[in-house]
Amino acid sequence: MIVTLKKNAPQEEIDKLHHAFEKRGLEVHEIEGDDFNVWGLVGDTASLDERDILANEWVANVQRVSAPYKLANRMFHPEDTIVDVGGIKIGGHEPIVIMGGPCSVEGKDQVVRIAKEVKAAGGQILRGGAYKPRTSPYSFQGLGYEGILDMAEARKETGMPIVSELMSADKIDEFVENVDLVQIGARNMQNFDLLKAVGHIQKPILLKRGMSASIEDWIMSAEYILANGNPNVIFCERGIRTFERYTRNTMDLAVVPIIKERTHLPIVIDPSHSTGDWKYVEAESLAAIAAGCDGLIIEVHDCPDQAWSDGAQSLKPERFASLIKKARRVAQAVDRDIQ
Amino acid sequence: MIVTLKKNAPQEEIDKLHHAFEKRGLEVHEIEGDDFNVWGLVGDTASLDERDILANEWVANVQRVSAPYKLANRMFHPEDTIVDVGGIKIGGHEPIVIMGGPCSVEGKDQVVRIAKEVKAAGGQILRGGAYKPRTSPYSFQGLGYEGILDMAEARKETGMPIVSELMSADKIDEFVENVDLVQIGARNMQNFDLLKAVGHIQKPILLKRGMSASIEDWIMSAEYILANGNPNVIFCERGIRTFERYTRNTMDLAVVPIIKERTHLPIVIDPSHSTGDWKYVEAESLAAIAAGCDGLIIEVHDCPDQAWSDGAQSLKPERFASLIKKARRVAQAVDRDIQ
Amino acid sequence: MIVTLKKNAPQEEIDKLHHAFEKRGLEVHEIEGDDFNVWGLVGDTASLDERDILANEWVANVQRVSAPYKLANRMFHPEDTIVDVGGIKIGGHEPIVIMGGPCSVEGKDQVVRIAKEVKAAGGQILRGGAYKPRTSPYSFQGLGYEGILDMAEARKETGMPIVSELMSADKIDEFVENVDLVQIGARNMQNFDLLKAVGHIQKPILLKRGMSASIEDWIMSAEYILANGNPNVIFCERGIRTFERYTRNTMDLAVVPIIKERTHLPIVIDPSHSTGDWKYVEAESLAAIAAGCDGLIIEVHDCPDQAWSDGAQSLKPERFASLIKKARRVAQAVDRDIQ
Amino acid sequence: MIVTLKKNAPQEEIDKLHHAFEKRGLEVHEIEGDDFNVWGLVGDTASLDERDILANEWVANVQRVSAPYKLANRMFHPEDTIVDVGGIKIGGHEPIVIMGGPCSVEGKDQVVRIAKEVKAAGGQILRGGAYKPRTSPYSFQGLGYEGILDMAEARKETGMPIVSELMSADKIDEFVENVDLVQIGARNMQNFDLLKAVGHIQKPILLKRGMSASIEDWIMSAEYILANGNPNVIFCERGIRTFERYTRNTMDLAVVPIIKERTHLPIVIDPSHSTGDWKYVEAESLAAIAAGCDGLIIEVHDCPDQAWSDGAQSLKPERFASLIKKARRVAQAVDRDIQ
Repeated sequence: MIVTLKKNAPQEEIDKLHHAFEKRGLEVHEIEGDDFNVWGLVGDTASLDERDILANEWVANVQRVSAPYKLANRMFHPEDTIVDVGGIKIGGHEPIVIMGGPCSVEGKDQVVRIAKEVKAAGGQILRGGAYKPRTSPYSFQGLGYEGILDMAEARKETGMPIVSELMSADKIDEFVENVDLVQIGARNMQNFDLLKAVGHIQKPILLKRGMSASIEDWIMSAEYILANGNPNVIFCERGIRTFERYTRNTMDLAVVPIIKERTHLPIVIDPSHSTGDWKYVEAESLAAIAAGCDGLIIEVHDCPDQAWSDGAQSLKPERFASLIKKARRVAQAVDRDIQ
Repeated sequence: MIVTLKKNAPQEEIDKLHHAFEKRGLEVHEIEGDDFNVWGLVGDTASLDERDILANEWVANVQRVSAPYKLANRMFHPEDTIVDVGGIKIGGHEPIVIMGGPCSVEGKDQVVRIAKEVKAAGGQILRGGAYKPRTSPYSFQGLGYEGILDMAEARKETGMPIVSELMSADKIDEFVENVDLVQIGARNMQNFDLLKAVGHIQKPILLKRGMSASIEDWIMSAEYILANGNPNVIFCERGIRTFERYTRNTMDLAVVPIIKERTHLPIVIDPSHSTGDWKYVEAESLAAIAAGCDGLIIEVHDCPDQAWSDGAQSLKPERFASLIKKARRVAQAVDRDIQ
Repeated sequence: MIVTLKKNAPQEEIDKLHHAFEKRGLEVHEIEGDDFNVWGLVGDTASLDERDILANEWVANVQRVSAPYKLANRMFHPEDTIVDVGGIKIGGHEPIVIMGGPCSVEGKDQVVRIAKEVKAAGGQILRGGAYKPRTSPYSFQGLGYEGILDMAEARKETGMPIVSELMSADKIDEFVENVDLVQIGARNMQNFDLLKAVGHIQKPILLKRGMSASIEDWIMSAEYILANGNPNVIFCERGIRTFERYTRNTMDLAVVPIIKERTHLPIVIDPSHSTGDWKYVEAESLAAIAAGCDGLIIEVHDCPDQAWSDGAQSLKPERFASLIKKARRVAQAVDRDIQ
Repeated sequence: MIVTLKKNAPQEEIDKLHHAFEKRGLEVHEIEGDDFNVWGLVGDTASLDERDILANEWVANVQRVSAPYKLANRMFHPEDTIVDVGGIKIGGHEPIVIMGGPCSVEGKDQVVRIAKEVKAAGGQILRGGAYKPRTSPYSFQGLGYEGILDMAEARKETGMPIVSELMSADKIDEFVENVDLVQIGARNMQNFDLLKAVGHIQKPILLKRGMSASIEDWIMSAEYILANGNPNVIFCERGIRTFERYTRNTMDLAVVPIIKERTHLPIVIDPSHSTGDWKYVEAESLAAIAAGCDGLIIEVHDCPDQAWSDGAQSLKPERFASLIKKARRVAQAVDRDIQ
C-alpha cells in the first residue's frame, strides 16, 4: 500500500503514523518527493482500509498495490475453479452452459411446459423466479415457496437442475433443500448478511453484479461468500446502470476477460436483464460467448405478452433454440463448445 | 398511460390488446398518427408495469403519465408529513434537525463521550453504526447488539434520540425496542423483504438512497414501507455513484426540491458519505440547508484518525460545532431555523 | 408527440397552446385522463423541441413518439448503406473490415513499417493519429500535417486507404486531399460546426461516439452530417464513461443491434479505447464481431512501451495477426467474413 | 509518480525501464513488496503520461502523486485569482456576481428588453446565446453575428458586460471585439484547438464543465488555456450526465470547495442547465451560494413558453428578481455579498 504524506506534516504526527503501521506488522519504506513524501507499506495490507488511513489529515492520498481480495484472487489460486451445479460443470474449459426459463414462475403447468421447451432447445439448467424483487409494491411479487416447488417438479420431469433467486436469509433452508444454484440478485449484491448466510452453505451461488457495483466491489462480495466457507461462486454480469436509455442497462463485457484474469471463478452472462429487450438478446449472447464466458442465463417464455413479469425481454422457445444453434457455432469458433 | 403501436400491427393483435386493457377496467382512447398509432389508457394504471405491455411485439413504446406511487404522492396528500423521532419533529416548517455521531460505535465510553460533544455542539439526534455494511469481509463489521446497547446508554445520558442502521429483518425487535429512528442503508434500499418488514412497524424509518437508484426508484421504496402500513418515512440523500473520482459519491441536491414537490415526506442530507472527505462536508451542509432540506446527518468523531471506520469523512467536534453555527445563519436566511 | 397537460390548466392557456400547434400544421387529438389530460400531436414533429413545449407551465410532460432523426432513420430508408473507403466497402453484408495502426504517427519510417505489419497481418485500412486530442497540454500533440503526409506515404507503399482524426474545420482541405476516411473524435462528437463542415464534403466520415453521448445524441450527430449533404457516415463505438475503474471506458455492445435496427448506416467498434488495455482487446474484438459489427479499428504498435501515446492499449503486430485469425473464425460463425 | 512492477519482471526489462526514467531526469526509489515491487519517481513528472508507462507489460499499475496541472494548481499559486469582466470582478472575496439573460438571442428588441429586466432585478452581467449548439440539425441554430451585435446593443443600453458562447475558432475576432466574457460550452470543453485559440487572447474565458468530464479533466482544460498565455479563466459547473432522469443533468456542488482547494481560479454555477427545470433553479442557486461559489449564470426570459430554446429552464424576470433577493440573504449568511 502506498501512502502519500503532505510535505508540511509535523514530525510528531509522522512518527505516530509510522509507529501505528509498524505495530500492525508492516514495514514502512520512505521516499522523499518534491511535493509530497511517499511511504510504501510492505506486509499483509488486506485488512487495512484505505479510507481509514486517509482520515489522518496529513495523508494526501492512499493507493492499494495488492488487490483487497485473497481467496478469489487468481494470483494465489492459479487454476480455474469449476463449479458443479447438479451434475453440470461450469467454468475452466468445460462446455458453455445455457440456462433458460421464465422470469417468474406462474404455476406448475407453465414452468413444466417451458422447462420442456428449454430442454428441447438445448438448455441445461432451468431458471425461474419464485421470490421476485419488484420496484413497485403493487407488482406481482412471485409465488414464493409454491413457485420453488413448481420448479422442483419441472426438474423431476426434465432432469434439469434449477436456479432461483434467494432474497432473504430466512428462506435459506428451503433453497438448500430444493434449489441447485442459489441466485443472489443485483439488488442484494451488497446485502452482506445474506452473503454471509450463503457463505455457510455449500450450494453453488450465482452472484449477480449490482447495478452500480464496480468489478472490485463485486469480487469483494464473492470474497464474503468464500471467506465464510463456500467456495462455489459463479459471477453473473447483468449490465450496469448508465445514462443510456435505449437499453435497460449497459452490458459490460470487459468483465469476462477481467474476471478470468483476476479471479479463478466462472462467469456467466445475463443478456436479458442487461438489454431489457428480446430483440437484442441474441447479439449480446453471441458476443458474450465470443468474449469467453462460461455460460448464459436467458429469459424464455412461450407467451411473452402474457408473462407476469419481464415479457419484454423474454425469448420465445423457437428463438431460444435458434440462438443456441448460433451460439454453438460461435463457441466452436473460440474453441469451446455447448453441450 | 400512453401506448404506442406499430403501424403494421395486424388488426387481430390490436383487438386482443384492446380487449385486454378493457378487461382491466381501462378506457382506451385511440389517436392515429403518421408513423405510429397511439393509445391513451384512462383509469387506474398504478398496477400496470410498462415493461409487461412492451412485451407485446406490436407495441413500440409505453409511457406512464401518472406517477407509479400513490401513498407517497403529494398530488393525493398535499399537506407535509411531519415525522416524530423520539420527540423531535422532522419535516414541514419545523426547525432543521442535525444528527451527528460516529460512523461506528466503538464502545460505550466512545459513544457516550461523542454524544455529549454532539449535544454540546447543538446536535439533536445521535447517529452511530452498530451493524456495519462493509465492502470487505476483513474490515470491522460493527459491535452488533452491544453497540445498540451502548447507544441506548448514550441516549440515557444525553436525552438525545438515536438512529442506527438495520441490515437484516431478524434484528427488527432489537431495533423497535432500542432505536428511535431505523436507518435502511443505501445498499439495502431495494432489499424489498427488509422494506416490507419495516413497513410492519411504526418506528420512523430513515430511507437512504441507493447508489444507483433513480429518484423514482427511491420513492417506490418508500411506497413499499407506506403500503405495508408505516407512514413514518424520512428520505436521506447520500450521493449517487458517477464517474467522478475526487469525491466518494456525487451529491444530488436537486432531490430536495423534487422530493418536496412530488411527495409529502421529509428529506435529510448526508454530506459525509456523499463527499467522503471531511473538508467538503461544511460546504455541502450549508448548500443542503439553503436548498431546503429538513435535516442533516453528519459523521462526528473526536479522533478521526483512530476511528474504526470512515474517519476520512468525520468531523471533529469543534468543526461540527462551528458548522452548526454557520448552518443556523443559512437556515435563517431561508426562513427556517435550527433548534 | 404526446403532450401531457395539468388538470388545472386554465381554458385560456389551453386554447392558446392548441392554437399554436395547429398553426404549425399539427392535428391535436385530446384524451381526458383522471390525473392529467393528454394531447396527441399528429404531423411532422421533427422540428419541434420537447423542451420548448415543456416551457409552458401547464405542460407536465412531453414524449416523442417518432424518432427525431429522419435521414439516418431506417424506417424511411430500409436498405443498408454501404460506404466506400478508398475501394474498401463497409456495411451491409460486405466482409468485416479491420483497421489497424499506431495511436500516433511518430514519423514516416514508423508508420510505413507498422503499415506493412498491419497489412501482412490481414488489415485493410491504416489508422494513425496526426492531430492528437490530449487531456494535458504538456503531452505530445501529434505531428500535424507532417503526420498526414507520412500516412499518405504509407498508403503509397502498401495500397491501404488511411483514416485519421480531424480536429478542426480549418484543416479540412488537407484531409480531403490526403485522407480516405475522416475521423471525428469522441470529444468532438457534438462540435456542431465541425459536423456541418464535414457535411459539406463527400469523403466518408468515421463518427466516434462521445463519452457521455446517448445513442440518440450520436445518431443526431450523424443526422447533422447527412442533413448537410454527406451521406457517407460510419458509426464508431469506443466505450462510454461510467463509474467502473478497471477499464478506461465501458464498451456498450448493444449499440450494434440498435444502430442496425434504427439506422441504415455501418457500425465499427474500437476495442482499444474502450478497454484501454491491450490484454482485453482480443476478447472485445471477437465479441464485437459476434454481435454483428461491420468493422474493427485497433491500435497496433511494434514497440508499445516506446509508443508516443496509448501504448498500454496497443497490440503488437503478432498479436494483431493472431486476433485477425480468430476474428475470421468468429465472423464465419455468424455468416460474415473478413477479407 | 508511483510505478508498480510485477514480481516476475525480467532483470533486463527492469534495467531498461529504470534507465529510461533516469534519462528523463527522474530519481527512481525502489521498494520491494510481497506481491509487487514499487518504484517512486521523484522529479518533474507533469509531462509523463501514466498510460504510456502502463504500456510496459511488466508494469502492473501507475499512480500519480502530484497533480498533472501546474499553472492552475493552488499549491504553486496560493492567492486567489480575481478575473475582471468588463469592470466586474469575479473570484476571491469579491461579491458574488449574477449573470442572467435568455438562452438564445432572438433579436435586438428581445435582448434589450430582457437585459433591462435582468439589470432591474439585480443582475450584473448579461448572458445570451448567438451561436447555439443544438442536438438536432433541425432546431434553431442561433442568430450568429447578428445576435452578438444585438447583445452589444443591450450592453450599450444597460452598461452590463456580456457573455456568449464561442463555438469555433474562426469567430474569435468577432468575440474579442464584441464580447466581454467568452464562454466555452460543455460540448467543446475538450475541443483542444479551440482551447488553444482562446489561450492566445486575453479576454476572460468562462469554461463550462463537459457532461462527462472529471474535475481533473476540467482543470486540465483550464491548464490548456493558461499554458497558452491567457490567465483569465472562470470555471462554470452546469451538471454532469448520470442515470437520473427527473433532472436534465446532475449538479455536482462538491466542485465548489474542490476547485477552491485545488486551484486559484473562480467558479460560477449554472443552475438552469443542470436542473433543466425552472422550478428547481432557485433551490440550486441558493445551495450554490451557500457552498461558496463566486457567481451564478441563470437563464431568464420574459415569455418562456415563447422562447426559441430552453424555455423550460428559464425564469421569468419577477422570479429572477425574487431569487436574487433570497440569494443576497444567503450570501450574507456565509459572509459574502451580492452587489
